[in-house]
Amino acid sequence: MKVYPECLPCFALQALRAANQATNNESLKWEILVEASRYIATFQPGMKPVEMAEIIYPMVARKTGVPDPFETIKHETNQQALALYPFFKALIAESKTPVKTALKLAIIGNSIDFGPPQNHHKDLKAETLATLHEPLTIDDTETLSSRLPRASALLLIADNSGEIVLDRLLLETIHSHYPDLKITVAVRDVPIINDVTLADFKEAGFPASISAVSSGNKTPGVILGKASREFLDIYAAADIILSKGQGNYEGLSDDADERVFFLFKTKCAIIARHVGVKEGAMIVKQGGGK
Amino acid sequence: MKVYPECLPCFALQALRAANQATNNESLKWEILVEASRYIATFQPGMKPVEMAEIIYPMVARKTGVPDPFETIKHETNQQALALYPFFKALIAESKTPVKTALKLAIIGNSIDFGPPQNHHKDLKAETLATLHEPLTIDDTETLSSRLPRASALLLIADNSGEIVLDRLLLETIHSHYPDLKITVAVRDVPIINDVTLADFKEAGFPASISAVSSGNKTPGVILGKASREFLDIYAAADIILSKGQGNYEGLSDDADERVFFLFKTKCAIIARHVGVKEGAMIVKQGGGK
Repeated sequence: MKVYPECLPCFALQALRAANQATNNESLKWEILVEASRYIATFQPGMKPVEMAEIIYPMVARKTGVPDPFETIKHETNQQALALYPFFKALIAESKTPVKTALKLAIIGNSIDFGPPQNHHKDLKAETLATLHEPLTIDDTETLSSRLPRASALLLIADNSGEIVLDRLLLETIHSHYPDLKITVAVRDVPIINDVTLADFKEAGFPASISAVSSGNKTPGVILGKASREFLDIYAAADIILSKGQGNYEGLSDDADERVFFLFKTKCAIIARHVGVKEGAMIVKQGGGK
Repeated sequence: MKVYPECLPCFALQALRAANQATNNESLKWEILVEASRYIATFQPGMKPVEMAEIIYPMVARKTGVPDPFETIKHETNQQALALYPFFKALIAESKTPVKTALKLAIIGNSIDFGPPQNHHKDLKAETLATLHEPLTIDDTETLSSRLPRASALLLIADNSGEIVLDRLLLETIHSHYPDLKITVAVRDVPIINDVTLADFKEAGFPASISAVSSGNKTPGVILGKASREFLDIYAAADIILSKGQGNYEGLSDDADERVFFLFKTKCAIIARHVGVKEGAMIVKQGGGK
């Protein structure tokens, strides 16, 4: 997905949120917003939004001397989701369609996102109770489910902290039905926004049977052209790729084939319009322009 | 009031809204937002927010060739408010404290404001019914009322189209009690956002006893240092000055003496914080740091 004009002010707002996380110094915030505006004035229409994020967020980290402004939020949301692990596990255990329920929960978990400026901190339990029985607006779950019995390797490209605990539950649920499936989770190479890094993967308590790989990207969304060799090999070998969140959709939507399933909640008007759904929609969307 | 760091992304959003009003051309919108970012990168901490508006909005007009992107909205809101004139007049007629009710209505009218990006089109009748009996968060109405019998000249500095019809009702109500009071309404010198110009003053149907003057300012809020001689003479001679809206508060708050009463609804978090109230608060606030 290419950037839209609406994304430009959004990156100024994102710089502001990151600055507010990192510092109380008003004149430093001013400097950061001036610098963000300078960068935004150089952005090109062909860029992907996540490529802009790769410029904005490290600038805030550099100017404030705070390498990971969302570190505390990430830890807190991981711990909150871990505390709810038994609650989520029970919902899946009680379900007649456990994989489907686990998929829905992993999408609800995607509401924990500090990228979109209008998206605020969510009470994950309240969010779950409110939206668990809402239908998916785009629902390629059946196609995804039908591919699982034939699959040898599954790659989940993670998005946000907190959400990663629900990804763990989804993958554990899938693994319990398909124990021979080789499962890998791709994480960001460096901290950016509240995205999952290797440290968050570890904090989420994945079983040893599920391994992690860095995408090699410093963007808050995978871009194949800038990904590491190791990641690209796993991507190429996967039979099913679960791409979580808006950032990975931005990065992958133009390149994704039919092995890719985008799982996310739309949290900005522009992405919602690009997908063709309303803001707040939950979707499981197969790639490959089928 | 000086600009805050939070105002910088806000002006990018304001450029976007004005661009959306003026054109459907996506690449032109891109150009406008890039240009807005270039300007924003040059803004100085000592500026007033309305001085930034004076740079951003004319740029959008110049790039799109649409001198007044909010022209249709202004006309529509004027006509909608005029259609409700009998409804508002009846509310004042039924009131035991007509001037106070007319003041409240003039503040409710201030909700019609296309500057703050989060503030959207309001149903003026619904807004009135919902908020007419809400208390003012800052209420210097008694001080204002006590000055009316001794006053010879009153100046109202107008803010928005639509709202201007409620300003007319307020001034007519005051005039009916104090027929000797000389009343003048100051309007913007040129179209900017949905602010009142001489054309809007005329559309609002003021009686001949109330005259209009241009402030001489091209900002969406009066700045004394840049105002016309004619306006400054009327300002100096006035016993009571009613300053409507956020823009006039931004422009005047540092200079206002105790003759000035700021009448507005807070529609942005930064101004609300500066005033010391919550967003959405209705206030009648005397100037002069009393």
